Amino acid sequence: MRMADRIETAVSNAIYKGQGGMAPARLAASLDYAVNPGGARIRPTILMSVAMACGEDKPELTDAAASALEVIHCASLVHDDLPCFDDADVRRGKPSLHKAFSEPLAVLAGDSLIVMGFQILTKAAVHDPERAVALIDILSNRTGMPNGICAGQGWESETEIDLSAYHQSKTGALFIAATQMGAAAAGQEAEPWEELGSRIGEAFQVADDLRDALCDEQMLGKPAGQDDLHGRPNAVATYGVRGAVARFDDILAGAIASIPACPGEAALAQMVRAYADKLVPADARESLSVPGE
Amino acid sequence: MRMADRIETAVSNAIYKGQGGMAPARLAASLDYAVNPGGARIRPTILMSVAMACGEDKPELTDAAASALEVIHCASLVHDDLPCFDDADVRRGKPSLHKAFSEPLAVLAGDSLIVMGFQILTKAAVHDPERAVALIDILSNRTGMPNGICAGQGWESETEIDLSAYHQSKTGALFIAATQMGAAAAGQEAEPWEELGSRIGEAFQVADDLRDALCDEQMLGKPAGQDDLHGRPNAVATYGVRGAVARFDDILAGAIASIPACPGEAALAQMVRAYADKLVPADARESLSVPGE
Repeated sequence: MRMADRIETAVSNAIYKGQGGMAPARLAASLDYAVNPGGARIRPTILMSVAMACGEDKPELTDAAASALEVIHCASLVHDDLPCFDDADVRRGKPSLHKAFSEPLAVLAGDSLIVMGFQILTKAAVHDPERAVALIDILSNRTGMPNGICAGQGWESETEIDLSAYHQSKTGALFIAATQMGAAAAGQEAEPWEELGSRIGEAFQVADDLRDALCDEQMLGKPAGQDDLHGRPNAVATYGVRGAVARFDDILAGAIASIPACPGEAALAQMVRAYADKLVPADARESLSVPGE
Repeated sequence: MRMADRIETAVSNAIYKGQGGMAPARLAASLDYAVNPGGARIRPTILMSVAMACGEDKPELTDAAASALEVIHCASLVHDDLPCFDDADVRRGKPSLHKAFSEPLAVLAGDSLIVMGFQILTKAAVHDPERAVALIDILSNRTGMPNGICAGQGWESETEIDLSAYHQSKTGALFIAATQMGAAAAGQEAEPWEELGSRIGEAFQVADDLRDALCDEQMLGKPAGQDDLHGRPNAVATYGVRGAVARFDDILAGAIASIPACPGEAALAQMVRAYADKLVPADARESLSVPGE
């Protein structure tokens, strides 16, 4: 099965289980709405790529880890879109969940999807309890406090922001979860994979800042110019467009250099490069980084 | 250590860990605000009582289970109080979290506490991975969809409510988690303990309906008459005050009869009776159940 199909199947199976039994119908429907159709599924793709590079031997664990990570990511999007945060009307080119359903259902869908991440991994313990515990450990730490995406979002309620902690937890956390969970699903040590996740997260953040500054709503599938609007720190404001592009290239090189030795090292480096080109096309990077253009 | 002290210590340790490192200060403070000072800590007390009745042999696991359950319960209170749900200004006699901090921090504190429940149990895997997985399995299923408290709250967004599923998930779920996690923490089968949890949950629901109908805000530490105000189904509206009291007594008898055979069976029955008396004092029950009074 192609990787993208594996991810969709795993996510759909998880949502289907969450809708079973005597579930209230609208909340059940909202879970599906929150995760389907998906975005680029970047985090589970990275996770699966790392697991395969590590010599994946228990694909059920990889599938569980990939879908657990993705539903937690979707939960964070649903809560981030709420009126008290970004107040976003649009997400992935369709009405945000609280617009399509209601605010109570958006809060509950987010809560349910957070829990679902752990339900998925717990069910996978039947294949390997030790690895499942490692996966739950990574995912919970990169989701909650003090180092996860909750902490990252929490920084936006502070009067003084620790920028490094903010970016590391807001964007980096789930990319670190992706690389570390990929390794853990394949039975490898997770720790050496933190740097790759962290650097991919940084690259993603810079690319997001570039897109937010340069693209319009139709291209993004969500409102543009949100960083400026909310006065959020971003790389374009700090370094300018050209500086941000140069920074993106630096981070990319560092990411590839950080890949731990493993059977699929070369293929993984190739994947990271392809992913970077998708984020910010190489020709756009070249034209933007030439002085005077 | 007294049971109440064990619970407070375990909960405080968990919150302290969630506040560590580079955590944003206001979100860190809101976690503490959400769980301290606590309410009656009924769910962890039941959990610990069951673990002891089962011949508790790994108290670290019981402590972890008790605090994990309590932080998830506190998370549910914080989210239930949000403007889009109960819009409650007061909780446990002080401003609700979104009033004291902000709505974004209330959403994030709830999210973080949900995750914290699983972080606590994952850390406890070092004492016994198999039991930790069993505990995470129970807690996640009784928190999320389709059978947990998220589902319970989700029923309030339906036009037609399945009353039995609503009560079972909204109130029953965490009491079932309490009895089952108590057994699992002590290395016993969880399944036979479902009925006790379910019946305690029913008793609690009827008692809550009675208090909501009969008490004022000062006695409750939160606004009274909320069920009527929100048109929520409740036992007093269905059976009348006397009928609800009779139902409470029936459920209590059923709960005690359902206790599985275990070393501490008698003490546990005694605890359930004492707990019932705290919920609805026996003399009040007697006077209310006499026809014509």
